[in-house]
Amino acid sequence: VKTLEDLGERKAIEIISRLLTEGNVAIGIGDDCAALEFNDSYLLVTTDMVSEKTHIPSVMTPWQIGWSIVAINLSDIAAKGGKPLGLVLSLGLPKNTSETFFNDIIKGADACAVQHSTSIIGGDTKENPHILLCGTAFGTVQKDKFMARKGAKPEDIIAITGSLGKAGAGYFALKQQLKETKLFKGLLEPTPRLVEGRALAESKAVTSCMDISDGLSSSLYQLQQINSVGFEIEFEQIPLSPMLLQVVKKESDLLEWPVHFGGDYELLVTLPQKNVDKAMKCIEQIGGSLTPIGKVTKEKKIFLSRDGAKQKLPNKGYEHFKPHHLL
Amino acid sequence: VKTLEDLGERKAIEIISRLLTEGNVAIGIGDDCAALEFNDSYLLVTTDMVSEKTHIPSVMTPWQIGWSIVAINLSDIAAKGGKPLGLVLSLGLPKNTSETFFNDIIKGADACAVQHSTSIIGGDTKENPHILLCGTAFGTVQKDKFMARKGAKPEDIIAITGSLGKAGAGYFALKQQLKETKLFKGLLEPTPRLVEGRALAESKAVTSCMDISDGLSSSLYQLQQINSVGFEIEFEQIPLSPMLLQVVKKESDLLEWPVHFGGDYELLVTLPQKNVDKAMKCIEQIGGSLTPIGKVTKEKKIFLSRDGAKQKLPNKGYEHFKPHHLL
Repeated sequence: VKTLEDLGERKAIEIISRLLTEGNVAIGIGDDCAALEFNDSYLLVTTDMVSEKTHIPSVMTPWQIGWSIVAINLSDIAAKGGKPLGLVLSLGLPKNTSETFFNDIIKGADACAVQHSTSIIGGDTKENPHILLCGTAFGTVQKDKFMARKGAKPEDIIAITGSLGKAGAGYFALKQQLKETKLFKGLLEPTPRLVEGRALAESKAVTSCMDISDGLSSSLYQLQQINSVGFEIEFEQIPLSPMLLQVVKKESDLLEWPVHFGGDYELLVTLPQKNVDKAMKCIEQIGGSLTPIGKVTKEKKIFLSRDGAKQKLPNKGYEHFKPHHLL
Repeated sequence: VKTLEDLGERKAIEIISRLLTEGNVAIGIGDDCAALEFNDSYLLVTTDMVSEKTHIPSVMTPWQIGWSIVAINLSDIAAKGGKPLGLVLSLGLPKNTSETFFNDIIKGADACAVQHSTSIIGGDTKENPHILLCGTAFGTVQKDKFMARKGAKPEDIIAITGSLGKAGAGYFALKQQLKETKLFKGLLEPTPRLVEGRALAESKAVTSCMDISDGLSSSLYQLQQINSVGFEIEFEQIPLSPMLLQVVKKESDLLEWPVHFGGDYELLVTLPQKNVDKAMKCIEQIGGSLTPIGKVTKEKKIFLSRDGAKQKLPNKGYEHFKPHHLL
């Protein structure tokens, strides 16, 4: 008998997608958000669950736990170019949870929502042997500005917002017991790229978009499958986080972490070469950055070039139910 | 230091409500759904979490687990007079969950959604040491037809859809190891009163409405607090489920179960005396029933009359984090 451990999360999602009766949904399972038609807009909905057992590092403060569940849900709204309308939050908590700990989770969640011009409008609280949070965010985007995962074309450029390795730097800093709490924030207080997502949507420059919560390599493999294309990524073009460069010295780690480690909530987009300048300017105008890191290919393989050597990129991103590391 | 066990679920919700920054929400925490303005309609959102440890009886099949999480979320949409737009579903499951068990949860959830003319449009799957499901449903209702929890007035009649004790009958049947699976369904396959909720909303006859998932007594105490009123309930008027009468013989149980046990997903409404006939006819037209069970009073106490004797009704409904019974 096959178990979820044998199947892995992505196969489980395939099963769900096959078993469910399709409703009048515009975009269903398999994108960052589901989308329902609502006049000339889409209603975007996304849900994410995080568990103490798999997703909440033990060093995370309750405030950061609350912040994170909101941030990762808003990141999915960002990836579709959406404007958040609100969130609901369900908390599964042990009954011996202190009132202070509980309050701090709520305060962290509220802070993240407020900082991104939205609010938590409801929720549920249940007893659970350990901490488990489930957030659902919803938002809107005009139909013609919605950025789907599907749409990448051969010859498109692939580009990424911000820089990679912030979460990895936090992980290293914590493992090495460094005292610089600023470093931890990249891992423990992610920033959803809502402003960048809206700017990209307004520019109408992109052909596809997704957030890279599970890591760059994992996201590339997902985009490859959806779009039946391949990618050639230039390692030297990947914008590395200064924080990563500060803590990581080993050459192999500098390759491993920005490419394979999850937790950097950046947006990965494809766009025609002719739109690159326009998109980059749009993002710069709102104080962000967009960096081309390679191109979309017809051949359905993913390569990483480094120092002129082209190698097949392994798919090592995080997947639930499969073995993984945690702090 | 106070813990969640000391506070209980309702106090925890009060804390959440106090700590959160209020957004531009029309109806916030404390009603069955949150509501956001959307042109001349409200977007309704509700979320519910169920856990193997507290809410999933061990006899429940995976199909019923899936059915239930959808049903209890749709019940909240029903209580506001809403039309469901869709649901998202997050599953926390042990990694040794078999593919068959997993498939059955999805099939049960899908069946409940489809039976109520809606669909599951997205979700998340995560590893968790035991089964924990989190559903979020959303729907719409015209602003002028929205039924809030707040609105009950002294002299109003209080009435209930369907009958009470179906879940209790299922509980008894299972405890007594009866073989009649039809009896279990009242507990294990609840029906959200969407059709009744819509009919009541269309009638514009009611002053307040909520679903009674935590039991009648608990719901009355919640309505009392929100509306600063009291209630006088006539036990003899409460519509008892024929199934309960079939399995329960002890007089004290016949009082206890329909009044205090949760799991009957009926709608509890208040309405002016002059609207009672109209509302009852509306519900009968769609094949349901609505039964007056007492009246709203100015005095902020809740009484239950039985055989002419009026007694204060204890608040014994289910509350999370507090001690409770489970199969």
